[in-house]
Amino acid sequence: MAGKNVGIEQIVNLSKRRGFVFPSAEIYGGLGGFWDWGPLGVLLKNNIKREFWKAFVQQRDDVVGLDGSIITNPKVWEASGHVVNFNDAMVECTKCHHRFKAGEVKKTCPDCGGKLLPPRQFNTMFKTFVGPAEDTANAAYLRPETAQNIFVNFEAVAETMRLKLPFGIAQVGKAFRNEITPGNFVFRSREFEQMELEYFVFPDDAPQAFHQWVTVCHQWFRRLGLSANHLREHRYQPDELAHYSRATTDLEYAFPIEGGWAELMGIADRTDFDLRRHGRVARGRDDAFAVADASGKKVVPYVIEPSMGVDRAALAFLLDAYQAIAGGRTTTTESIKEEEVVLKLDPRLAPYTVAVLPLSRKPELQKVALEVAATLRQQWSVSYDETGSIGKRYRRQDEIGTPWCVTVDFDTLEGAKRPKGTVTVRDRDSMEQENVAVEELEAYVGEKLK
Amino acid sequence: MAGKNVGIEQIVNLSKRRGFVFPSAEIYGGLGGFWDWGPLGVLLKNNIKREFWKAFVQQRDDVVGLDGSIITNPKVWEASGHVVNFNDAMVECTKCHHRFKAGEVKKTCPDCGGKLLPPRQFNTMFKTFVGPAEDTANAAYLRPETAQNIFVNFEAVAETMRLKLPFGIAQVGKAFRNEITPGNFVFRSREFEQMELEYFVFPDDAPQAFHQWVTVCHQWFRRLGLSANHLREHRYQPDELAHYSRATTDLEYAFPIEGGWAELMGIADRTDFDLRRHGRVARGRDDAFAVADASGKKVVPYVIEPSMGVDRAALAFLLDAYQAIAGGRTTTTESIKEEEVVLKLDPRLAPYTVAVLPLSRKPELQKVALEVAATLRQQWSVSYDETGSIGKRYRRQDEIGTPWCVTVDFDTLEGAKRPKGTVTVRDRDSMEQENVAVEELEAYVGEKLK
Repeated sequence: MAGKNVGIEQIVNLSKRRGFVFPSAEIYGGLGGFWDWGPLGVLLKNNIKREFWKAFVQQRDDVVGLDGSIITNPKVWEASGHVVNFNDAMVECTKCHHRFKAGEVKKTCPDCGGKLLPPRQFNTMFKTFVGPAEDTANAAYLRPETAQNIFVNFEAVAETMRLKLPFGIAQVGKAFRNEITPGNFVFRSREFEQMELEYFVFPDDAPQAFHQWVTVCHQWFRRLGLSANHLREHRYQPDELAHYSRATTDLEYAFPIEGGWAELMGIADRTDFDLRRHGRVARGRDDAFAVADASGKKVVPYVIEPSMGVDRAALAFLLDAYQAIAGGRTTTTESIKEEEVVLKLDPRLAPYTVAVLPLSRKPELQKVALEVAATLRQQWSVSYDETGSIGKRYRRQDEIGTPWCVTVDFDTLEGAKRPKGTVTVRDRDSMEQENVAVEELEAYVGEKLK
Repeated sequence: MAGKNVGIEQIVNLSKRRGFVFPSAEIYGGLGGFWDWGPLGVLLKNNIKREFWKAFVQQRDDVVGLDGSIITNPKVWEASGHVVNFNDAMVECTKCHHRFKAGEVKKTCPDCGGKLLPPRQFNTMFKTFVGPAEDTANAAYLRPETAQNIFVNFEAVAETMRLKLPFGIAQVGKAFRNEITPGNFVFRSREFEQMELEYFVFPDDAPQAFHQWVTVCHQWFRRLGLSANHLREHRYQPDELAHYSRATTDLEYAFPIEGGWAELMGIADRTDFDLRRHGRVARGRDDAFAVADASGKKVVPYVIEPSMGVDRAALAFLLDAYQAIAGGRTTTTESIKEEEVVLKLDPRLAPYTVAVLPLSRKPELQKVALEVAATLRQQWSVSYDETGSIGKRYRRQDEIGTPWCVTVDFDTLEGAKRPKGTVTVRDRDSMEQENVAVEELEAYVGEKLK
């Protein structure tokens, strides 16, 4: 079963060893809650973002995109309620002065055993100052969510794009939360990337749209490879709901962290809360952003919000794809005797779509292999590797999830066991090899990706 | 000539009217130097970033990617010199206390005529605090450039990816500069997006690599449509160079702003300055990040840095593509009598690749048109428009740069003047129409985009 018995540690190790994720500026000791995504990590994240955009924006006829600024007018966060409400309760040790999230510690300090002060509220928005003076008048915040960019642009987007309900506005971008205790690798970090969609509907249509989006999101994760038994829906009870929400369902993934099942993403019916707040603060009336329904009556739209994190999604995809095969794998063409790690990522998410491997470093093989790699690179990310035995190179690609390894050998040049001008394409999961003509490779990979 | 007589105002107007760029949170009066990219703007920016990534990373065999955090360990900025040196000289008015960039104002305040104080230094990095205490020990900065993420990960990336010189590490991401006087629309903003590449070479190879990257960048902008007469290279004189640079060439674009020609992007030979600084501060030795050359001698790599801004590139592409055709345009099939705006963007950059237009709102036409749109959306961003006369819809698409308009009419359903099952594809620039079979459309557009 995919992902079974995989801990966060294995993913941390793989990430560091192969260049998925590093602690931010590790040469300076890192910084708690911040991560640098390495060469393979950025490819994985780009693929996740591209698949989100395709499914949630490009391929739909009712969703457009937006890219709002991370720092914006601070009135946005006053109106949204974040300045007053976006708090975590924090406790401080009287002895070592370390600080902890209330509820995550008992009565005495876990670091020194000292006594803890009563909890106090701490706003988790990062604050900065815009312009050349550090005074309150110039205070601004790094957005803690991308959603508010969308609400404040609701009117401008609807007008310029001539949109009628129902329609959605999607955004992909960084958000920042000054977590008291970030942790579990990239599961909870202080800087992360969101993929959010605000889908505006007439109030009566909100329940149905809510259910549809839960289904769309669930299917999206399943289609990209998360196994059914690691994914479940958690519908909030009325007393669990945020004050602005009438219904919320989390998609939960079986993360191997304390407590187990945890939020992978959430879908919330936010009602007309946000548009009314911004209407009131920006225009002096709750219904400033109302639109006409079929009968001409003005109605403030309700909004359904699917909200997910790129980093957390990447972690789930990595966990689910990770397989350590204890006894190795053997087929008619390959025999791997030691434990092997295979990252069974969906080919659309794999950092490299193809690896090109000349059987040896003989110049005539290199020449053809480099040409093949250059051709495939026109469309896909390609790894070229000529170091070590072919078996070792296959295992290196298995570990980072490359679905297809193209090997250029002497049959490619001269033909003997195979026709001249063909290469072998080895499948990561089945380890089966197929003979493919060099000029057919692009079509072959394109077809496989469909 | 493309872009001739186009001012920033036309682009600002087009941007606001059609949803390319809005002032950030305009319902609250915006915030100086911050912009929200609307539905068309985010498509344009995504296309620019995709083309950068393709040309500078994916299609090369010597460049990998990175996605470092915006907030990182502040020692990075101490070592890089930014904490001490990343300053602008600022003057303050004694009367109204407004502040200006020194050198941009004369002796008296442009706002009230008051007397100005002598210039003082102002660090233009945005500062924030990480963790639940706003004290100096927790101060951190928003990165003013993506480059330093790359330098501090040089060793981790080279090792995990087993890279040998020469190789590059590329990054696309937001950067922040607390400009005293942001301006000229998105030309100089406080939050912007960079596309940077650090290309590491043996010192002897630096001059040649520098010239190659100038050429690569110049050709990239030309290939994506910037006209030759709006683009030039400005090689810095020795006394113009930054302290860390041995050679710098700016690609300048003929921006219609005060002073005219201005930096579109820069290519700098940064020598071994950055790797030595980080080696010294992080590891106690200048040569901590040295690598072995062919003879085994340890050498600190030199680095060539092509650095560009997505926002500024987008502005240049918009300016260059913008054509206001005073007398309209007439062909055998169309006659546009009033002034028309045509945005002659390269098809790879155009927000929508295709528009699908049913000739009228007759349900049988809508049905086919929606099917055609759904098919094309599998691969490309598509605009569907059924409002207004067909001529008006063509002009709407011309204004936002859509290269091809597909019209579904009664001949599509029944055939008469054209074979049944065909649509017309109208070209934005030539206004010529071609008949294309519906099932050939994807291949037709794919071929055009090559």
